Amino acid sequence: MDKMFLQQGDLVGVTFWLVSIAMIASTVFFLYEGAKVKPQWRLSLLVAGLVTLVAGVHYDYMRDFWVVNQATPIDYRYIDWLITVPLLMIEFFIILRAVGGAVGSGSFLRLLVGTLVMLIFGYAGEAGMMNATVGFAIGMVGWAIIIYEIYGGEAGKAAAAAGEAVQSAFSAMRWIVLVGWAIYPLGYVFGYMMGAVDENALNVLYNLADFVNKILFGLIIWNLAIKDSGDTAH
Amino acid sequence: MDKMFLQQGDLVGVTFWLVSIAMIASTVFFLYEGAKVKPQWRLSLLVAGLVTLVAGVHYDYMRDFWVVNQATPIDYRYIDWLITVPLLMIEFFIILRAVGGAVGSGSFLRLLVGTLVMLIFGYAGEAGMMNATVGFAIGMVGWAIIIYEIYGGEAGKAAAAAGEAVQSAFSAMRWIVLVGWAIYPLGYVFGYMMGAVDENALNVLYNLADFVNKILFGLIIWNLAIKDSGDTAH
Amino acid sequence: MDKMFLQQGDLVGVTFWLVSIAMIASTVFFLYEGAKVKPQWRLSLLVAGLVTLVAGVHYDYMRDFWVVNQATPIDYRYIDWLITVPLLMIEFFIILRAVGGAVGSGSFLRLLVGTLVMLIFGYAGEAGMMNATVGFAIGMVGWAIIIYEIYGGEAGKAAAAAGEAVQSAFSAMRWIVLVGWAIYPLGYVFGYMMGAVDENALNVLYNLADFVNKILFGLIIWNLAIKDSGDTAH
Amino acid sequence: MDKMFLQQGDLVGVTFWLVSIAMIASTVFFLYEGAKVKPQWRLSLLVAGLVTLVAGVHYDYMRDFWVVNQATPIDYRYIDWLITVPLLMIEFFIILRAVGGAVGSGSFLRLLVGTLVMLIFGYAGEAGMMNATVGFAIGMVGWAIIIYEIYGGEAGKAAAAAGEAVQSAFSAMRWIVLVGWAIYPLGYVFGYMMGAVDENALNVLYNLADFVNKILFGLIIWNLAIKDSGDTAH
Amino acid sequence: MDKMFLQQGDLVGVTFWLVSIAMIASTVFFLYEGAKVKPQWRLSLLVAGLVTLVAGVHYDYMRDFWVVNQATPIDYRYIDWLITVPLLMIEFFIILRAVGGAVGSGSFLRLLVGTLVMLIFGYAGEAGMMNATVGFAIGMVGWAIIIYEIYGGEAGKAAAAAGEAVQSAFSAMRWIVLVGWAIYPLGYVFGYMMGAVDENALNVLYNLADFVNKILFGLIIWNLAIKDSGDTAH
Repeated sequence: MDKMFLQQGDLVGVTFWLVSIAMIASTVFFLYEGAKVKPQWRLSLLVAGLVTLVAGVHYDYMRDFWVVNQATPIDYRYIDWLITVPLLMIEFFIILRAVGGAVGSGSFLRLLVGTLVMLIFGYAGEAGMMNATVGFAIGMVGWAIIIYEIYGGEAGKAAAAAGEAVQSAFSAMRWIVLVGWAIYPLGYVFGYMMGAVDENALNVLYNLADFVNKILFGLIIWNLAIKDSGDTAH
Repeated sequence: MDKMFLQQGDLVGVTFWLVSIAMIASTVFFLYEGAKVKPQWRLSLLVAGLVTLVAGVHYDYMRDFWVVNQATPIDYRYIDWLITVPLLMIEFFIILRAVGGAVGSGSFLRLLVGTLVMLIFGYAGEAGMMNATVGFAIGMVGWAIIIYEIYGGEAGKAAAAAGEAVQSAFSAMRWIVLVGWAIYPLGYVFGYMMGAVDENALNVLYNLADFVNKILFGLIIWNLAIKDSGDTAH
Repeated sequence: MDKMFLQQGDLVGVTFWLVSIAMIASTVFFLYEGAKVKPQWRLSLLVAGLVTLVAGVHYDYMRDFWVVNQATPIDYRYIDWLITVPLLMIEFFIILRAVGGAVGSGSFLRLLVGTLVMLIFGYAGEAGMMNATVGFAIGMVGWAIIIYEIYGGEAGKAAAAAGEAVQSAFSAMRWIVLVGWAIYPLGYVFGYMMGAVDENALNVLYNLADFVNKILFGLIIWNLAIKDSGDTAH
Repeated sequence: MDKMFLQQGDLVGVTFWLVSIAMIASTVFFLYEGAKVKPQWRLSLLVAGLVTLVAGVHYDYMRDFWVVNQATPIDYRYIDWLITVPLLMIEFFIILRAVGGAVGSGSFLRLLVGTLVMLIFGYAGEAGMMNATVGFAIGMVGWAIIIYEIYGGEAGKAAAAAGEAVQSAFSAMRWIVLVGWAIYPLGYVFGYMMGAVDENALNVLYNLADFVNKILFGLIIWNLAIKDSGDTAH
Repeated sequence: MDKMFLQQGDLVGVTFWLVSIAMIASTVFFLYEGAKVKPQWRLSLLVAGLVTLVAGVHYDYMRDFWVVNQATPIDYRYIDWLITVPLLMIEFFIILRAVGGAVGSGSFLRLLVGTLVMLIFGYAGEAGMMNATVGFAIGMVGWAIIIYEIYGGEAGKAAAAAGEAVQSAFSAMRWIVLVGWAIYPLGYVFGYMMGAVDENALNVLYNLADFVNKILFGLIIWNLAIKDSGDTAH
């Protein structure tokens, strides 16, 4: 059959579907809006749209993978994150640059290292290539590097020197990286480290996290771009 | 087979198909028009287009689900409504904001609560998770909250202070929420509460309701945007 | 198999394919051109593009339906007409409005009634819900209402008061409704009322009619829009 | 299986694939460029893009037809030519009109007659409806009519009166109709008139011809449009 | 099944998937950005987008080919390169032309000859049409021709006369052709000339090379275009 229909009562499948369609709508939203904001915000919205585009394609596969296998589409999740997380990190720089902030490439390299540590060890732990708890612990270190950089590091300082609207958006984006991203390790803990693997809890939490960290994250940037573009843009 | 053809004489399937294709055409219409209206109306038409885009994807699945199973695609309907109904609620705010109206976020929260109560209990009743009549009754309360808010609440008052064209559109949109949305409980009553479930009546009414509440609703907004944009936009 | 290939020598299938691909190309054509003509013609070309978009989707299904069943895709034809014929009727109004003509909604209602009578009884006759000849006769009355309205009624008078270019285009569009639409009853007569149903003749004629009445009709509007937009548009 | 993979070593299939993907890329190219050239060249590039769009859809089918059947997709080729050859003929007029040249509709009718004679008898010969050699001979007459018209006829004279850039492009386009189109009869001769039908030679030559006559032809027009639009367009 | 899912643990398949989705995102990126840069850079970004579009379609097939066969999709790789490598060569010219550099067509012909020698003998060696080592050696000569031309030849000299930003980008693009392209012969050596064919090493290296040589190459051009367009474009 060409279309893989959800089974009635498959509430986890429903969350896959919800995020899947929300990613598509968000992509249209960000690309459509990006075509009209002030030039310096165009790139931010384009990147926000690419994040949801990439996630949308993956969720299309993950949704059907779940419908067919009722199992965690672990490879697709990490492929997705390997592309979208660096793009989200880049957003911090684009925004600072859009308002003329000075931020060096050393900061970007530290964020990239943090991202790769977080994803590679997370994957190794989930895919059973190493002990789940050890993979988890090392992955957490990567996340800590990211959080340190955006709060106390060079990027954080550049943001503190920018205007009020940027500071407020930057602060909300930072908060998402701190709190929104915390849903992933939560899913990991509930999924792998509480005895048997609970695929349902794991996937519902991961789906929620992707919704917050991609769509909500993009909407914060959009909101900043709109405010800064003023009445002439909307 | 790749294409799932309608069976001749399947008139309910015909209504699924009609709404499905109308959603696609409406999406192209709203996004195409939104690219040229005055900047402050651009967002309203984008959201109208996202509503029909999301519904179009769901109707594509629902139509084939019906063709294959001749049964109500109840999960898809509620997934769709969970995304599109909040977007429709947001339209009231975008319009007021486009004309400079003052309306607080408290009003938006009340509408959101009303929406969630309406959809969650409606779903619980239809999916057999609770007694159909009780789910129906509680869902109606959610709808009542929405109606109160847009007629007598903060949003209603902000509209009363806006120009004539906005008032007239706002009034038509309100009327759709009052009368157009009434088709859903009608479908529910005819479908579940008159003895055996009548899938045909239920789905024809739901399809009609989605046509009115998404496409007609969007056309009212489009008409307002065109009028307000004046000759330079068309 | 994913692609349904035409059988060699299936000339009726060839006409389905020809119209199918022509509808796609026309859609791109009208939407691309509409983005650059003078603002008041934009809507006319958008609607022309929606007509061919809707027809394109239906022909995609009808073509494969024919390839598989070698039978008339009667439901798809009427679903298509139920959406596209009202859109074609609306074109008369949009054009008059684009040049500032005064035409009331009463005229539109009469055209809509004529359209519905024509389509519903035509369908009833073809689908075997009523005697083919009786359905045909009543359907013809609907067509007569339309012809009267655009020739002698309010819309016709408004056109007579417009500029030369509009009059000439209006006259060509009217001629299509008179002569081009006459192909449908011709197909009906050859298909159902000459003894056995001749599916081949019926479908070739219907395909030809759709080509004339949707693509040629749109091209007339496009030509008018181009002329009126002057050198700055092309 | 959803994707029909080429068999290793199927070099004819490789040429189908090459042309297929080149048509898609060309379509994006022409439509993207057409959005920015001087207004009078926009239509030329749109038509060039429609030619490759229509051909792209057909090559998608023809490629898979070949993979499955290892036989000439003769119907698809003629359906494609029936739409794209008239569009190519129209290009001559659009270009002359873009530079203000005077050319009557009589010239267009002669080109259309030539095209139809060429295609209909070519098809009849290839599809075995008439003797291959006779179909070939009559088809050649159609081609001769076209060549006479663009070299010595009205269109040719109008071009001679235009500026240098147009003359040079017109001359290149004419040369393609003379030399590039000669590949088709060559394919026909090698395919049908040298004893057994050689499907491989026939299709490789037809694929090459479509590449030259659609993509190269479009590129000549694009080059003219770019030159005429000057630095402001690129 | 419609979707061909990766097998868990298929790390080579993961690299196919990663490149596949990155090509799609890059295409959207280049075409979106190209619509806003200074007119003379528009064409460069369009070509960069066509390269990733063509590669994206091929990777979509290659990925599924790998999932199904766990074998090198050798035909698709060479079809892709036959289209994308000439487009990459053309980029050198477009960039020089964008800044008013003088570079003749002789240089382009030498690059084309180099490209064809490199690809045709490479294919012959990989497809087993000739001895792998001999095919490799002759293919290397083609690559040497390209490198000589862009470093010491006419194109190289024209770049040396351009502004600093162009020189720096040109130098980076050259470096990619020297170092990034070196990954292909590396894959070839590891894949075919070290005893048994190692399909895994071969494909991972080829995928990495395509990522660098198409996406990174395009990003260098984009970066140059952005810098040269100044604040008004971003």
